[in-house]
Order: sequence, then C-alpha cells, then structure tokens
Amino acid sequence: MDAPGVQAGHGEHGGRNAAAAAAAGTRLDPWFAAYAERAHGMRASEVRSLFAVANRPEVVSLAGGMPNIEGLPLDFLAEMTAKLLRERGTRALQYGGGQGEEELREQIVEVMRYDHVHAHPDDVVVTTGSQQALDLVTEIFVDPGDVVVAEAPSYVGALGVFRAYQADVVHVAMDEAGLVPEELDRCLAELKRQGRRVKLLYTVPNFHNPAGVTLTMERRPQIVEICRRHHVLVLEDNPYGLLGFDADPMPSLKSIDDDGVVYLGSFSKTFAPGYRVGWALAPHAVREKLVLASESAILSPTMMGQLSIAAYLSGYDWYGQVKSYREMYRERRDAMLSALAEFLPEASWTVPDGGFYTWVKLPDGLDAQAMLPRAVTNLVAYVSGTAFYADGQGHDHVRLSFCYPTPERIREGVRRLADVVRAEAELVRMFGTAPQPSRPGETVEFPSPDQV
Amino acid sequence: MDAPGVQAGHGEHGGRNAAAAAAAGTRLDPWFAAYAERAHGMRASEVRSLFAVANRPEVVSLAGGMPNIEGLPLDFLAEMTAKLLRERGTRALQYGGGQGEEELREQIVEVMRYDHVHAHPDDVVVTTGSQQALDLVTEIFVDPGDVVVAEAPSYVGALGVFRAYQADVVHVAMDEAGLVPEELDRCLAELKRQGRRVKLLYTVPNFHNPAGVTLTMERRPQIVEICRRHHVLVLEDNPYGLLGFDADPMPSLKSIDDDGVVYLGSFSKTFAPGYRVGWALAPHAVREKLVLASESAILSPTMMGQLSIAAYLSGYDWYGQVKSYREMYRERRDAMLSALAEFLPEASWTVPDGGFYTWVKLPDGLDAQAMLPRAVTNLVAYVSGTAFYADGQGHDHVRLSFCYPTPERIREGVRRLADVVRAEAELVRMFGTAPQPSRPGETVEFPSPDQV
Repeated sequence: MDAPGVQAGHGEHGGRNAAAAAAAGTRLDPWFAAYAERAHGMRASEVRSLFAVANRPEVVSLAGGMPNIEGLPLDFLAEMTAKLLRERGTRALQYGGGQGEEELREQIVEVMRYDHVHAHPDDVVVTTGSQQALDLVTEIFVDPGDVVVAEAPSYVGALGVFRAYQADVVHVAMDEAGLVPEELDRCLAELKRQGRRVKLLYTVPNFHNPAGVTLTMERRPQIVEICRRHHVLVLEDNPYGLLGFDADPMPSLKSIDDDGVVYLGSFSKTFAPGYRVGWALAPHAVREKLVLASESAILSPTMMGQLSIAAYLSGYDWYGQVKSYREMYRERRDAMLSALAEFLPEASWTVPDGGFYTWVKLPDGLDAQAMLPRAVTNLVAYVSGTAFYADGQGHDHVRLSFCYPTPERIREGVRRLADVVRAEAELVRMFGTAPQPSRPGETVEFPSPDQV
Repeated sequence: MDAPGVQAGHGEHGGRNAAAAAAAGTRLDPWFAAYAERAHGMRASEVRSLFAVANRPEVVSLAGGMPNIEGLPLDFLAEMTAKLLRERGTRALQYGGGQGEEELREQIVEVMRYDHVHAHPDDVVVTTGSQQALDLVTEIFVDPGDVVVAEAPSYVGALGVFRAYQADVVHVAMDEAGLVPEELDRCLAELKRQGRRVKLLYTVPNFHNPAGVTLTMERRPQIVEICRRHHVLVLEDNPYGLLGFDADPMPSLKSIDDDGVVYLGSFSKTFAPGYRVGWALAPHAVREKLVLASESAILSPTMMGQLSIAAYLSGYDWYGQVKSYREMYRERRDAMLSALAEFLPEASWTVPDGGFYTWVKLPDGLDAQAMLPRAVTNLVAYVSGTAFYADGQGHDHVRLSFCYPTPERIREGVRRLADVVRAEAELVRMFGTAPQPSRPGETVEFPSPDQV
C-alpha cells in the first residue's frame, strides 16, 4: 500500500498545492496540504528543546510559571478525596452539566467577593483551567482579521490563543502603574479610524504576567470607561489576584462594569493546577454562548475535579492556604529582587507586589532571545521577552519567575544569569551584535506549561 | 453608567449592524453585534428545557448517553486515590506536559492493542475526553466551507463541532453493515467534481452512535482504500469498541492504514467519564499539531485525572470491569429489544451487538421531533433523529439508549413510548400531519451531555 503522501500529486488538494507540499516535505507529513489555514501558524517554538534541557535539576529555571504547591495539605486532601469517592463516587465519576456544578459555581461566587465582584452562580461557567475560558471567549468573539488589543507585553498563552483564531494583536503600552489609559484611548481611536473591528481588550490587571505590575485603583474606572465608549469588551484575566503580598485585592474591572467585562478566574495558583479547573464570569447572553462552545469542545468539565475543589473550599481553610502561599512567594520575590540588586545592577526591573514574575530590562545591546542558549549552557533559564509580543518586540527584556525555585536557588540563578549577561555584553562590545527585531508574529509561539 | 448596549447605535460595530442588532434585541445582549461569525450558529436547542424535565426521576429517559458506572469498585478507587495524593500529590496536583503523561500514554497503547493497533506512546495525545480530540482535529484541518463527510446519521456531538468550525457536513448512507463503501466512493467523486475541499471522513465503526450498527470486517479495508484514493483523512471515533456483547473488537481502521487515520479513544465508557480523559492517536506530524492546539486550548490535560486512570489501569483488573460492563449492557440491550418487539411491533429498529443505542424507525407519518413534548408528558424521553443530521433528515427516527436505566425501567419506557406512538398515529390519521423536513442545519444543535 502506498502512503497517501505518495499520491499527493494526483489528488485534488495534492495537485493544487503540489509545489508548496513538495517544498514543505510531504514525505514527512502526507497531510500537509490538508491543514486549515489557522494550523499553519501552529508550530513548536524553537526554544522547546532548550526548555527540555532547562528542566534538568542542575539548571535553575527562572522560566516556568508552575506554582509551588509543596505547602498543600496532602493528608487532608487524601482523606477528603477518598470520602468523596466512597460517598459520592458515582456522581463524581459521571458526566456533569456543561456549565459546571452549581455547588462549585456558588463557591466561585464567594471567592470572587475578594475581588469586589457580586455575581450570580448562573453567570459562571466552569472551564478546563482559565486557559479554556480564554479560548472560548476568543472563539465566540474573534473572526480572522479582527483586532485584539493587549498590553505590551502580554501573557504568552493568550497570544497563542489569539493567533490560533487568526486575530491581529495590537499592543498598548504599560508603565509601572499598569496599562496606560491615554495610550489605550489613542489606540482604539486610531483603530476605529482605520475601520478595524476591535473585539477585545485583553488585560491582566493584577501582578501582570510577564510585567509584574498592577493596574492602579485610579486607572481602573478609566480603562473601563474608555472601553465602554469604544464598545470594546474587556477580557479581565485574574489568575494571581489573591496572591498580593501587601494588601487585599483592589476592585476588579468586572466589579466596576458588570456588562462590559468578562472575568476569568482560576484555582491553579490559589489551590493547584492538577484538576484543571478555572472559570469565566460573563454577561448573561455571553455566558450562554460560552456554555454552548464549551459543550462543543469538551462536553462537560471534570466532575471529579469540580467536586474535589468544592470539598476543599468548604472543608479546609483555603484562604489560610492562600495566605501561606503569599508569604512563601513574597520571600521568593524578595530573594529575586535582592539578588538582582546585588548581581545585576546594570539591568532594571519591575517590583511586583504579588504574583510570580518580574520583568527585567537587559543592559543596552543585549538580545534576550539570542542569549538564551548560552544562559542554559550556564545552567540558568528564563523566558525571552520576545515571547510576550505579537509584533517582534521584547528582545531587550527577560521574564524571571520566582514562583518555583527556593530563595537560595533563585539567588544562585540570578548570579548565573549575571555571569551570562556580562559575558554577552563583552561579546557585543567585541563584535557589535545588536538585537534584531523579528518579523511580526514570528516569535509568538504556543505556550508550553514551562513558559506560562 | 449607561450599559454598552445603549450606545450600540453610536459605536462602530453598533452602527454597522444597528438594524440586525435592534432586530435581535441588543437590550438583551449588548454584545450581539460583536460575535464572531461562528458564534451565530451556536444556540441552545429548543429541547433543552424539555430535557431538564426529562431528568426528573419519574421520567424514563431513553435519551441520555451516560454510562452506568454503578459497578465501579469505589472502595478500591478511594484507597488508590488517597495513596496517589499522599505519595505523589505534588505531582498529581501540578501542571503536566501538553501531550499528556508518558506513563498513561504507554498504557493507552496497551489498551489499543485490543483494536489491533500497534502504536507508539509518542503518537498519542491525551485530551479532555475524546470530545476535545474531535474538536482539535477539526480545528487543525477544517477551514470554513470545507466538507466533512459523515455517516447518515452521525454523533450529535461531532456535528456540533463541525458546525462550530463552519464545515459543511455531507452525509453518506449506512445500512446494517455500516457505512456503504459504494456510496462513500460516489460521494467523494461527486464532491471532487464539484471542486469541494473534503477534509475528513468522520466515522464511528463500532456500535454506532446513534445507529447501533457496526462496520463489517469486509468493508473496513474498502473504506480505508476509498479514502486513501481520494486523499481524505479518516477520523475514526471509537468510544464503544471494547463494549461488544458477543466478540472481541474487530481490527480498527487505524490498524489497517496507520498514515491515513486519526483514531480517537476514551475512558468514559470503559471506565468512567468523571475525569474527562480521552485521547487521539495520529500520524506523527498531525500529532505535533494536535499538541500545539491543545496547549493553546487548555495548556495541559489534568494530571490528577491521568495519574488516577494510570493507577486504575495498572492496579485493578480493568478489563474484567469492561467484561462486567458488557454483561450489564447486554442485559439492557436485550430488555430494550424484547420490549420493542412486544410493545412497538409497528416500528423497526437496528440490533446492536454492543454499545449503548438502538435506532428506531417510527411508523410512517410520525415526526419524532414533533412528538417529543408529548412523549415527555407521558414520562418517557428519547432523542429525535433530527439531532443526528446536518441536513434536516431524521424526523422519522428516534435514538433509544439502553445504557442508563435498569432493564425494568427500559421495558416501562418502551411501553410508554408505544402509547405515545399510537396516540400520535391516531392524531396523524385524524389531522393528516406529516413530518416536515427542517431547513438544512436548523436542527443541528450543540450536544448537551444528556444527548451524547
């Protein structure tokens, strides 16, 4: 039997795309010519193999966004889960409704009160992590060529989703106080003048990934008002909101304009990611579409995960656990900042009040992407700033995460990074290499969990 | 603050779509004009509220596709899961890789040996139920307007996915021996002549949902050869394959042509749906795209679910459990068939050798969709045949499932259905009502877990 690829030149699609298919090597992929247009943008990042190396224990990874869940009460969870399976096993192991369990949605409403949100459980959709919520919102709003406005820089996993739906991402500047309202207003006015269809403002107001900054209270109603005036839906992504080091959360954008905001939440950072449970809170008609889209994608979210999290929220001092996470991450943030001050004074960085990340500007002339292989060789890993832009920016930045390694390892990682930076600066001085902007879109890649 | 909807007439999108938006009631949905084109096809089925009623205990539901998992060893699962959390909790509750755990993928390879598939774990992608695999395959292959060829009738959840990606579904006839090769060949040739881009043949070869038939051994290589000749990828969906009542599974299409088939599998029917774990086995280059698409959609599948299922497969006689499921479902199938023979001899039906469903042709002149409210009033529920076609067919059929109710309840349900059918026939005789084909596409709806 011949493989289909051998016949590609004779088939309809093969014939039409014979040249392209041959060029791309149909021998390697007999289905190359059959992919949807959106799939041609899906390719593994070149740094994936590098990150495989970076996961070796001898490498200090300041790249990953994995929470440190060592502090979880495993004995409690073991007892709780055994009880759930014994007493409600046939329910926990069955299909559930597409919107998610009411019991959990009611608890999610309580969790969101910390963000000053007063919601109804009927407006909540439980999803496979908040990543699926991001995917579903994009699915129901974004046609190819539509514009999504996003912070500069933005979460790599969101850029991957927007790219999968063939959106054009337009970045708007941030500063230490978060997204800049005047820049947003100017950008939306300009896009309107160009006749572009702007569908979403995607924003992470609290402890931004990767920038580490938080939108100030003063700017929150301004951002909401600008979007309302331009009739642009706000997609507020808030995975880290409860992980502030110094204060309780500020009012979310959702709490300021219920009709104009879809809010995304997650248990991955406040509890654990292993059940893949997140949610969206949306205006009612939007929520209906989200449920339909989710049913099409996965039928229903995991009952076992939902009932486990519901049991944890009701049976354990979950907010006490959040507080202990805060202390742990604060200590790591401190270790990161003091190591940066000690070893890398020639760089500059943001000072996060919560979350997992700081955003570091390299000394002039260095290229974060070009430097990465040498960093990994020197047993330290980071994510190049280029991952967080859809337009080729970011070569002069790196994202450093302080969530997973211990304070001692963080210090050691920054020390190694400083060595790499100095060696790289020496190279630049000798050979005059300077950062080159990539072609727009070229550096956006689908996230691997290592980079989130 | 005005709601955005009030300003719809002034905004860019509002202005452009003002008439449509007004007609559709922007007061109810201020974001109506902002939806993507694909979202306009997403709407709740009219029968949803009916199914909410159908879930009441007094109604015998022959509608749902929920497996009966009463036979699961809950005490064993409780102990096993507690041990997993105590000993490997920080791994089970963490993010995993986007492709899924190697440990589980190796076991999935063993499971697929029953379908005569010899695969490598590297070609397996673990997904959020096989529904997500279906969604991902469609995402990477189907552009709007592309054709997906599917059996007549087809799984409602697959039709929902194809619709979400704006595919045109073309149905090909089945008979008691499954998909008819000559009809498939003729259909693909005709589509080629029309210049259509045919991307997939979607097929459920074993214990078809909803038709209850199985593709014969003789036809399997014929179907594969026809698709290879037309360079059409086969999407083989096999959730029920291990649930045959009389014999071990026949060789899957995947085992006949590895390069030309993407195979979808699921633990939902052979174990339980509650963890939402399924998989795709795909040619290598396709598998790479599937992983990237899945990472974009959900980052990674549930570690807790994957490790739990891995522990169940390695620690329990899971195939013994499958055998006891078979006996249980066989008894229910027998109850269904004998009740049909006793109470509804004026109908005809398929005789399934496995799985969950039989496909019943109503007496002439009856309309399954129109009759459904009266059936629910008479305390029995089914799924109208119209749900399983993208082109308005199916009014003369109902799908009856025998998976969930007890044999006694099945018998009672069929008895009630027979009463409804006879009353309906009387109405038709008196008033001459006859089935009306719907407009194509109108009756395809997103599946609710009740209907899967």
